[in-house]
Amino acid sequence: MNDEQYVYKGKLLNLKAVEVILPSGRKATREVVEHPGAVAIVPLTSPDRVVLVRQFRYGPNRTLLEIPAGTLEPGEDPLSCARRELAEETGFGPGKLQKVGEFYTSPGILNEIIHLFVATELKSICAPKNGDEDEKIEIVELNLDEALNMIKSGRIVDAKTIIGLLLVSRAT
Amino acid sequence: MNDEQYVYKGKLLNLKAVEVILPSGRKATREVVEHPGAVAIVPLTSPDRVVLVRQFRYGPNRTLLEIPAGTLEPGEDPLSCARRELAEETGFGPGKLQKVGEFYTSPGILNEIIHLFVATELKSICAPKNGDEDEKIEIVELNLDEALNMIKSGRIVDAKTIIGLLLVSRAT
Repeated sequence: MNDEQYVYKGKLLNLKAVEVILPSGRKATREVVEHPGAVAIVPLTSPDRVVLVRQFRYGPNRTLLEIPAGTLEPGEDPLSCARRELAEETGFGPGKLQKVGEFYTSPGILNEIIHLFVATELKSICAPKNGDEDEKIEIVELNLDEALNMIKSGRIVDAKTIIGLLLVSRAT
Repeated sequence: MNDEQYVYKGKLLNLKAVEVILPSGRKATREVVEHPGAVAIVPLTSPDRVVLVRQFRYGPNRTLLEIPAGTLEPGEDPLSCARRELAEETGFGPGKLQKVGEFYTSPGILNEIIHLFVATELKSICAPKNGDEDEKIEIVELNLDEALNMIKSGRIVDAKTIIGLLLVSRAT
């Protein structure tokens, strides 16, 4: 049996130290970050055009080009969250919003799961919450082929974005 | 200017709270997890056969099927780390070990970067460190098509593994 203990409880993240007994019988500690989970959306304005967002990220300490994404609110279902985050970051409402998969971002240390959606039949429904209260987000529309080339050349380096773009390009 | 402060310093992870000033002028806190970075390897025993590892993960609290991977030791270069982790987890040494990309696993909260390699011309060079000191790791060899179907059906749900398999299947 494992014994676990919180070493930090934060606004978005908790960190716990899990005492584990290895197959050898030795005891060890595993540090695990708890996260509420997230959604990410591949918004397609046409079968071969994708909308990305460029924003500064405090983890890597640099600006990244990513698909729209955001954290689940308490009790929020992933589909509603995807609809909310897409509108907040891009101003688009989708005629069609389809779940295409889910994945753990870094399962060795983090329980974060991302629910991945593809949004099509997009309509502009509001102004994006751009640079007002929250971090500044720049919207970038690209050809899918161009975005795939940016994975190859190392200009797109965000895991969820790489997965979303590769899955969409296989399906079309 | 941002002010940052460590709220936890651990064995593998540090957690810091970064005080940021948003475009609106409001101050806010961002929680960021520091990680030394990692490598992941897609080991191909033939152009259409891939070696995966199955192991229990304390983050998601479940057993996952993944490509071999591991954390960078202090000062270790990613190529050496990939060679070491591949041998430790599978017993294979690669005739050819090629970097195919790098990506951030969860840049909103974590600075972890994964350096991704493809290993070919594999030779069995040692016994894997299997279930002795560390967690038990089961080695699974699959057809690449079978592994791609497991992404589609939700039986492979690890981000780095999805990226590795999709990139390799595009290249071949």
